Amino acid sequence: MKELGKKVLAGDIRAASRLIRNLEDQIPNTHIAMQEIFNNTGNAHVIGITGAPGAGKSTLTDEFIYAFRQKDKSVGVLAVDPTSPFTGGALLGDRIRMLRHAEDKKVFVRSLATRCSMGGLSKAVGEGIHVMDALGKEKIIVETCGVGQQEVEIINHAHTVIVVLVPGMGDEIQALKAGLMEVADIFVINKADRDGAGKLYKETLNMVHMSKGAAADNSWNIPVLLVESVLEPHKFAESVDAIREKVEEHYQYLVDNNLLVERMRRKTAAEINEALWGAILQPVLNNLEKDGEIEKMVEQVLKKEIDPYTLADQIASKYVK
Amino acid sequence: MKELGKKVLAGDIRAASRLIRNLEDQIPNTHIAMQEIFNNTGNAHVIGITGAPGAGKSTLTDEFIYAFRQKDKSVGVLAVDPTSPFTGGALLGDRIRMLRHAEDKKVFVRSLATRCSMGGLSKAVGEGIHVMDALGKEKIIVETCGVGQQEVEIINHAHTVIVVLVPGMGDEIQALKAGLMEVADIFVINKADRDGAGKLYKETLNMVHMSKGAAADNSWNIPVLLVESVLEPHKFAESVDAIREKVEEHYQYLVDNNLLVERMRRKTAAEINEALWGAILQPVLNNLEKDGEIEKMVEQVLKKEIDPYTLADQIASKYVK
Repeated sequence: MKELGKKVLAGDIRAASRLIRNLEDQIPNTHIAMQEIFNNTGNAHVIGITGAPGAGKSTLTDEFIYAFRQKDKSVGVLAVDPTSPFTGGALLGDRIRMLRHAEDKKVFVRSLATRCSMGGLSKAVGEGIHVMDALGKEKIIVETCGVGQQEVEIINHAHTVIVVLVPGMGDEIQALKAGLMEVADIFVINKADRDGAGKLYKETLNMVHMSKGAAADNSWNIPVLLVESVLEPHKFAESVDAIREKVEEHYQYLVDNNLLVERMRRKTAAEINEALWGAILQPVLNNLEKDGEIEKMVEQVLKKEIDPYTLADQIASKYVK
Repeated sequence: MKELGKKVLAGDIRAASRLIRNLEDQIPNTHIAMQEIFNNTGNAHVIGITGAPGAGKSTLTDEFIYAFRQKDKSVGVLAVDPTSPFTGGALLGDRIRMLRHAEDKKVFVRSLATRCSMGGLSKAVGEGIHVMDALGKEKIIVETCGVGQQEVEIINHAHTVIVVLVPGMGDEIQALKAGLMEVADIFVINKADRDGAGKLYKETLNMVHMSKGAAADNSWNIPVLLVESVLEPHKFAESVDAIREKVEEHYQYLVDNNLLVERMRRKTAAEINEALWGAILQPVLNNLEKDGEIEKMVEQVLKKEIDPYTLADQIASKYVK
């Protein structure tokens, strides 16, 4: 595993892919590779893109890759696919649209389809970012799917958070409900040629204005940018490049005001939490699963021979000092 | 804590509220109350309502309460509010709309606003259901917010899953992406008087038809029901009662085909997982937090004095046998 970490540091794409897959599959001792690369992380600018399904996040991500490549930045993309509880796999698979970057060695795209249910998705994202960072990617884009608490957790890994809205039913309500207002650094209103775009724009500006007092670092003026649909490719690329500029500006703002470390603090706390899960609970679960104990326990509880809490106490007393 | 459990079994609403709050706040030893009530659980019919924000889940839930009360069933409602990462609280607070049932002793409504990030939400939902069950509620409605992996986890606690769609942008795509297709027992198309309802209806029927082969228990015909907007209250209540009938029918189907235990198996596995988290990892986290260790650890990692994985290993060796 130490070797795998070294290969990633040397820029080996295949090693990086394998490491990310190992992390997702929770292969034992994968953390040894992570220990190896950790000192070479913390250099990339991590950009989170979130918003409701259908808001056009994938299209934007795709255009961002292009925009950053025009500026000769190397790019990593971590796309978070939802997990089907039945197949345990990604429904959509690796993003087909991004194939146009497949030949570009400075672009590295991975989809996550995490199986683990207990907070594993955020853990896999945090670790995936480290791998891309150690691989030398300068800009790492994390694209979430949907808006919910899980997405807020994922987005906490980013330095710059872009929330994508589209005109339609209650998008601003969605963002509010999901707590996205409080994490947004940049708002993008996509499909701005649609009905209701003007209204959404005004409402979003209002929200930004109202929430200003509550923001942690409130000297940053949260911009609200408009992007028209993909109907006009040239115009679209131009608008996306304007967002890219704002993204860079935000990063510079964080650097200049010593706020990068604040962002990292939030992320680091979550990471320690997740590493503790990996070091303490995961080995217990793996052991139980290996021995077929989980199935036996399920049957016991179903028959009401024991309750889950007493059962967990018993296992804890076996494993915990 | 044992006393608190006993009070819940005796039907004490305030004790039930306190127990749910204790579970959410992860007060130590709360599991003792859960051990006390566990043998009196498993009697309620748990109904999950999920769908995108703005789909009208709260309105439907409210009408369901009314419909079930007309049939003299006691009702518990567990509404899952999103957690703001900053305030740690519910944005919307307890559902104001449901106040009209406030005087009805056979209706018990609680909102969850779980602080814990590591899979705690699903845990709190599962435990909240047990409390309402032990309290004697016959129908327990769990209402999620948003569509995402977290929602799928929450919805796994239900026997009957209702997915609410509304005409608009890519609702069926949302359901697909979030893996909701595979967990839906009943589809409801709300606001069916809106443009695009017919199209959505046909698409949903198609989806149901296509997914039939993959379903675990595929002798149940997943119905797709239409509900018009609240504009016509009388008609609305009638449509909701038709859904209630389907919900009852689905429960009977599960009972008749011995499938209830299958649903419980899925739920039980998740619960054991969560109880293990509570018994093994939670005490470690509580200890670390109490001693201010977490903050110290965060600073160490930020300064790159140590990586999270090595740190977690060290803590594991202190706590794990």
